[in-house]
Order: sequence, then C-alpha cells, then structure tokens
Amino acid sequence: METTKFAIPEIIFGRGSINYAGQCALRHGAKKVFLVSDTGIEEAGWVQRLMEILEAAGIDWIYYPRVTPNPRDFEVEQGAEFYLKNGADVIMALGGGSSMDTAKGIAIIASNGGKIQDYEGANRVQRPLPPMVFITTTAGSGSDISQFCIITDVKRQVKMSIITRTLVPNISIVDPLILRTKTETLIIQSAVDALAHAIEAYLSRIASPFTEPQSLKAIDLIMRHLKHAVESRSLDSLEQLSIASIAASMAFSNAGLGAEHALAHSLGGHFDMSHGVVHPILLTAVMRFNLPACTKKMADIGRVILDKRLGSDLDTALAGIEKLEEFFASFDVSLKLHEEVQADDKKYLESICKMAVHDACNLTNPRSASWQEFLEICEEVW
Amino acid sequence: METTKFAIPEIIFGRGSINYAGQCALRHGAKKVFLVSDTGIEEAGWVQRLMEILEAAGIDWIYYPRVTPNPRDFEVEQGAEFYLKNGADVIMALGGGSSMDTAKGIAIIASNGGKIQDYEGANRVQRPLPPMVFITTTAGSGSDISQFCIITDVKRQVKMSIITRTLVPNISIVDPLILRTKTETLIIQSAVDALAHAIEAYLSRIASPFTEPQSLKAIDLIMRHLKHAVESRSLDSLEQLSIASIAASMAFSNAGLGAEHALAHSLGGHFDMSHGVVHPILLTAVMRFNLPACTKKMADIGRVILDKRLGSDLDTALAGIEKLEEFFASFDVSLKLHEEVQADDKKYLESICKMAVHDACNLTNPRSASWQEFLEICEEVW
Repeated sequence: METTKFAIPEIIFGRGSINYAGQCALRHGAKKVFLVSDTGIEEAGWVQRLMEILEAAGIDWIYYPRVTPNPRDFEVEQGAEFYLKNGADVIMALGGGSSMDTAKGIAIIASNGGKIQDYEGANRVQRPLPPMVFITTTAGSGSDISQFCIITDVKRQVKMSIITRTLVPNISIVDPLILRTKTETLIIQSAVDALAHAIEAYLSRIASPFTEPQSLKAIDLIMRHLKHAVESRSLDSLEQLSIASIAASMAFSNAGLGAEHALAHSLGGHFDMSHGVVHPILLTAVMRFNLPACTKKMADIGRVILDKRLGSDLDTALAGIEKLEEFFASFDVSLKLHEEVQADDKKYLESICKMAVHDACNLTNPRSASWQEFLEICEEVW
Repeated sequence: METTKFAIPEIIFGRGSINYAGQCALRHGAKKVFLVSDTGIEEAGWVQRLMEILEAAGIDWIYYPRVTPNPRDFEVEQGAEFYLKNGADVIMALGGGSSMDTAKGIAIIASNGGKIQDYEGANRVQRPLPPMVFITTTAGSGSDISQFCIITDVKRQVKMSIITRTLVPNISIVDPLILRTKTETLIIQSAVDALAHAIEAYLSRIASPFTEPQSLKAIDLIMRHLKHAVESRSLDSLEQLSIASIAASMAFSNAGLGAEHALAHSLGGHFDMSHGVVHPILLTAVMRFNLPACTKKMADIGRVILDKRLGSDLDTALAGIEKLEEFFASFDVSLKLHEEVQADDKKYLESICKMAVHDACNLTNPRSASWQEFLEICEEVW
C-alpha cells in the first residue's frame, strides 16, 4: 500500500463531557481562553455554562460571539486581531461548523500572520497553531475532528478550502446532551451531512483500512437511528448520531470526499444552500454515476444499508441506492433541485459545473468526471 | 453513555513510510534526535538506514542501543541521564515493544525527574514529555499507538504498568517493509498478541463505539491473513497483519484489557514467558470463563471468526471459541502450560493467581474473578 496518513484529535465523548472543558484547556497550558461561539448557542445557555466551567478551573476567558453562518475572510482576520490584542493562549469553539471554522481561521492568522487567502489549498500553514479545544453542538460538520476549514472569500465569492493536518484540533469534546437543544431540521441536515461524508469517504480514491470501517459504521448508525432520533428526540438515538458523525469525520478528514461534495460546494456557494439541503438531492445521483467505477465498494455500502447482500455486487449496490432514496423521501426534505431554486436559475448550472470539476474534492472521486457529466447529473436531479 | 476517551497518535502507514521519519522529527522541532533501538534491528540494517534519513533531513542524532527484552528500571534511568547529558530534543524509537517502552520510560524520567517507580499506575505523569516519534518493527505490541509502558521493577520482580494519555507517541510510523526481516516465530507471536488485545478490548467493561469496530476489524484480519503470512511471507499478508495490530492497539489503548492479560502478566513475569507464548495457552480458557457475562459480545466475535452467525448467540460464541482453538493448534505453538514450564513449577500457580487478580487489567474484565477462579483456569490449561 502507498503511504497513508491518519490523524484525529483526542476525543472526549459522553453525556456531561462539557464539564471536562476546563481540565482540557489547562492541560494545554491555558491561562486565558479565547471562546468562539454564536448568539444561538448563547441563548440556549451553553455559553454561560462553559464560562462557569472555565471559571471553576481558574481560567480567564475572552468571549468572541461574532460568528456568522459561512464565515468570511474579514471576520477571521478581525477575530485574529482581537485574539492577539487580548493575549489569549488557547482557542475554544463552542458551536457548529461555522463557529469551529471561524476559530480555525483565527488560529491560522493569529500564529501565521498574513491574509486567510494565503493558506487556501493543502498544507500551506507553516507555523504551529495555538492549542484548540472544540466542543461541537451539531452531529454533522465534523470540523471538531477534521483537518478542513472552509472560509468564504468575499471578493471572489468562493468558499476556500484550507486543508492541513495542523487544523486537526487538539481535543474534541462531544456531549450528546447539547444536541437536545437542536431543531428537527438541524438534526436531519447534520445527519445527512455526516452520511454523505461517510459514503464519499468510503468510495474515495485514497480511502484506507483506517478510514473504511469508520465510514461503514457511520452509514449503519445513521440509517438505523435518524428516523427514531427525529421522532422521539430520545437521547440514546441522538447519541448514536453523534457517534456516527465522529466516525464519518474520522473517515473523510483522512480519506477526502468526492464529486458530490465538489458539486455541493459550487451549488451551495451559488444558491446559498447548506450541505444538508443539497445531499438528499444530489447524493444518490452521484452514486449512480460512480457505480461503474466502484461496484464492489458500492455493494459494501448496499450491504450495510440493506443489512444483507443480494445475488451480485451490482444488485446489492443498486438496491442500496434505492433504499437510500426511499430513506431521504421519508423525511420532509427537498428531493429535486427546482424545489430549492427559481426556474430561471437553470441557466447558471453550466458555469456552476465548470467550477465544480476544479474543486479539490473531485480529485478523490472514484470516477473521473467532466463538467458535461456534472451538468447531466444536475439536469437529472433538476 | 458515560464519558469515554479516545486518543491515538498520528499514524503514517505504508511501504517505505520510514522515509518520513526526518520530516516527522522536524515537525516537532528536532535538532538532535535521541534514537533508541537494539542490536538485532541494527544488524538488519534499519538503524543505519534511519540515521541516513535523519542526516538527509539535516537532523543530528545520538544513538542509544542499550535496549534489552523486558526493559528494567535502572536501564531507563540510565537512558534518561544519557538523554539529558546529550541535549536531545525528540525521542525516536525503532524496534518492538521493548525499544518503545524503553524510550517511553526515558521520556518520563527526562522530563519529570525522580524514579520510574514514582509513575506506576494510572495518570501519575504530570509534566509533558519530549515529542516521541516511534517506528515499530513488529506487528503486535502496540506501544507505538498505546498509552501503556511496561517496565520491570528489578527489586520487587514485578512488571510495572505505567498508563497515561501523555504516553501516546506524537507520531507512529508503520512500514510493512520492516516486517519482512522478522522470523516466523516473531510474526506468529506478534499477531497472537494483537489478537488477544483485540478480543480482550472488545469484551472490556469500558469498550466504546470507538474501540469496538477496531477490535472486530483486527480479529477478522488476523484470522484471515496470519496463516498465509507465515507460509508465504507475502508482503500483502504482512501488511494486513500490520493493519490488524494498529486496529487492535487503538482498541486496547482506549478500552483496556481483561483477565487473560492479568494472568499473562503474572505468569509471564514469573516464568519469563512472552505474551505471544502465553496467549494460545490461556486465551480461549479465559473466554469460556467470561462467556456467561458477555454472551452477546462473544457471539459478535464468533460471527467474525466464523464469518456467519449460528442459531443462537451462545452457539455462535462457542463455535467461535472452538474455531479459535483449532486456529492456534494449526501453528507450531504450545497449547498447554506444562509444555513451557517444569512439572514442579505447578506449586507457584497459587501465588501467581493471587498476584494476578490485583493486576490493573483485571479491573476491566467483563466478569469478576477471584484468585481461586484464576487457579481453576490455570489448572484447566496445565
């Protein structure tokens, strides 16, 4: 096997694990924590709770609540200035992907200087970052586990991917109790995001024996527990979704993603749609496109979804994709693109697909795809 | 779920991955590497190769070759003195469990002072260790992945377990090409050690969804590939054993072990037997003892070993244990204790079992065991 790398943060998982936040910061030498969160989390009471935990551990903190969805370049640069001015020494994010990516962007600029654009792409961050202790409030984005950070370049209207091992936080605290305060929509969107991470990572050209079992575990857990989690809000089911999200994140952070995420980035960037909205529309169509290039691996996914193998790999793979389509249809989500955008938006698809083929995620897709093939997929799901 | 933790090093895996050793040391600020290895590895040419890699990266090194099997207290204290005197800044081990545990012991004393006995037990190392980059030459001990370090207290004739998260190395480099220079016996013993790690970690009281899939993956790979690896020495099979060992180590480092390891520590300490020799004798007997306390989980193991489920959990579990016994019998290893010790050694079993029940590994065994029950197991396998 070619050389493969596997890097994840230390994970502290369980009900009430937020209580370890102070201890975790102390272990990384914290005197003053830079706490990144947003007003939604604040209103749910979690920011106050975390401040009390830090105070009880004798740690000073400075609060940075200016997180917006899809964090932008100038925001992380302002944040880094605020970080340096206040002499903080550990960065803590409490939130979903936006809070965590904001914290990562701040960490990069605070320790490496320059503009966030300087670090776009793979392995361009040279100097070590301040210690990062992240507490996720969703079960999907995986930023608390991954080496990815997505920041919007406002001038170019592009979502920049910054990917480097130093972006893996030092510690990820995952407390399923925090998930109880989430809406039904957010639970579905997060789980669907994790499911897409798991499936694309499993089929990735650089999937490894370290990432593949994590992908299959995540797919299995989400298929088994999402319905019940949404209907019952049972803590047990929400906990299983948290575990699934962690497994999916371990996989995609180290194996990369595929054409579906490449398209989702461009479509989502253009139409301001979140990943969780795009996946039920696109995922199975991209799987059908990829099928000839990875029938055996698609059958492994089918076996997990169906909990059995059929006569042939192809039959198992196809039946798995069909079952996944039924699964998406059983939730209150859009299944076609026209449900989310205007009829005359169709004219943008060509330029969106031309951009999508150059997305870094397309490099690890199991089947090479041209923009014309991307366009066919978009028209199929229109 | 109660709070559970999962910590592993960054892993760099693949044929030729030893070539990344210099880069890994540089990432941790190395100017002068403290290189721990032994004469066997040196004779196989790997020490020279590593020195060349470090030199090419512009890194100075100081070589510490004084590793012995089952490293002893005074050895790591001497090593720490040597480390400090030479102003090294990164510790690199190239070898099996003995080299890596020696390196860990040196790292503890060099940065925390005192005697190695001061750190026996769990979480007693307070100050951070120097960066550790480990290159394993066996596929079994797992010291390159785990938070364990085993050092012999010469005066008390006891193997001390030192267990703390800071003992997880920063980077583990696993290069299957190095395994090709190993003997058949060492390949079997290492794989059997990894198999016992995987099985005991799966059944552990503190197994978690993060450790369980790793255990099952390791069991599956070893059952499928050990025979062929021994017969053919094929690099593909040896590589699968490496992957299995990493998976098993991720599991046991975070889930702990059980009664079989508790007994193996005491038996091995008394009769100077390595783990790889003890496991084929003890493992299935301990599994039969544990069966009533964890029938369902034992059936999961049975399903992996048999590649199918039988009518009931109990049937699947028992058939799995029987298949495992046949598997051990198919290799040239001892299956009864009397094959390894003298007939009049039987008189020591009582005191060995009285010591074994207090071993830390017994705390996570799925079924509580008295020393009398341990003695029954030993008599059964005599």
